[in-house]
Amino acid sequence: MEGLDASSIVPLYKQLKDLILKEIKEGKLKPNQKIPTEQELSEKYQISRMTVRKALAQLVDEEVLAKKQGKGTFVQEPKIVEDLDNANSFTNLCKRNGKVPGGKTLKFVLEEPSDRDIRELQLEPKEQVIHIQRVRTADNIPVMLENLYFPGHLKDILTENLDDSSLYQILQEKYGLRDKDFIMEIEVSECNNYEASVLGIKNNSPLLLVRELIYDQYNHPLHRTKSLLRGDKIKYISSRLNTSEG
Amino acid sequence: MEGLDASSIVPLYKQLKDLILKEIKEGKLKPNQKIPTEQELSEKYQISRMTVRKALAQLVDEEVLAKKQGKGTFVQEPKIVEDLDNANSFTNLCKRNGKVPGGKTLKFVLEEPSDRDIRELQLEPKEQVIHIQRVRTADNIPVMLENLYFPGHLKDILTENLDDSSLYQILQEKYGLRDKDFIMEIEVSECNNYEASVLGIKNNSPLLLVRELIYDQYNHPLHRTKSLLRGDKIKYISSRLNTSEG
Repeated sequence: MEGLDASSIVPLYKQLKDLILKEIKEGKLKPNQKIPTEQELSEKYQISRMTVRKALAQLVDEEVLAKKQGKGTFVQEPKIVEDLDNANSFTNLCKRNGKVPGGKTLKFVLEEPSDRDIRELQLEPKEQVIHIQRVRTADNIPVMLENLYFPGHLKDILTENLDDSSLYQILQEKYGLRDKDFIMEIEVSECNNYEASVLGIKNNSPLLLVRELIYDQYNHPLHRTKSLLRGDKIKYISSRLNTSEG
Repeated sequence: MEGLDASSIVPLYKQLKDLILKEIKEGKLKPNQKIPTEQELSEKYQISRMTVRKALAQLVDEEVLAKKQGKGTFVQEPKIVEDLDNANSFTNLCKRNGKVPGGKTLKFVLEEPSDRDIRELQLEPKEQVIHIQRVRTADNIPVMLENLYFPGHLKDILTENLDDSSLYQILQEKYGLRDKDFIMEIEVSECNNYEASVLGIKNNSPLLLVRELIYDQYNHPLHRTKSLLRGDKIKYISSRLNTSEG
């Protein structure tokens, strides 16, 4: 392994950063791999712990490394980035992030609506709700547990095989409906036993809980969703850029 | 305490929901208070555990109650709602949510920039960075730990008392600068010892980590932020509503 050059005009902390970045790029350090401790790096490269700390702190701030309390410092795999302003299908989201999308439908049933279903979907008296639960995978790793609730009168979608088709395509073709406006909420949640087992993570792992109420082009509620996203795998971005002066 | 009426046309689960909502409204059940177990409610009201479970599940889904793994079910205090599309000052955010804003500046210093500071703020060679760290409170409860980084050339803001003034007001008055475009990222994080102690929560509690890069009206970077928001206290909403057909 290469050393650092104390005579260089490049500061030592920067040399150490560059070296770690290079090892990640070359695959010598792999995603989720633990890196040596401050003490070990300090001895190996004959630099102060202060210098090591500075390099590691910056790599953590740049989301290249992640500190786990009491466990050490690990190589962080880049998170899948979902653009809030141009939300897209899970399939496209994966493709844009260089991942292979997959998934499995866990539930696809007509059921009694909750009061929230009745209120948000403006259900008719005695109308049931279609509940679709899917786990979504990126490169075969579960990243999202998705619950969709549709008004029962759209029950023709119950005949479709959702693993391979796009739901919105079906709604467009069978009912001439498409999504337009929405309200969404993003908050933090901790997963329960069931969610943890489906997502392949530990109980109480932190999740993003995303609720949406989607309207069709006639401003009628089309469906609502409650999605649980693995906090270690997905993040959101939003932006307002290149606007002209108002 | 009132009972349920098995002869009513209102389903029993709905009667139990209404009763719990009434007790919360009247202050008999207080925020963060534990409610009786399924078993206890079932015995008290002489209804099946299935009926109790349905009522509680709906109240959890409606964010009135929160289940904590292995601990029970608790009355959930409504979270502070931040509108992503109309982001506002913390002071206004609190006011809109009926809370009294407060806070304390923990750090307000000129320091060496990180590589991220240099890159994102487009710093000149040898230009330092102004680092402001504030804890923000709502009704005297810490809800956010905010880090702001400004280019060092805006150093006149270092003379201000930030506890009582709005930073953007100072930037407008002293430099004629105001915020315009932005890029923001929202993800989940777990708090470390320091963050936990400042926010008054347990180590590893889930947080929303929000990074922003804010541009001024001339499209120059104005500042960047890294904010840690208590996941149990704040949530985001975003919407697209009442748009006309395109």
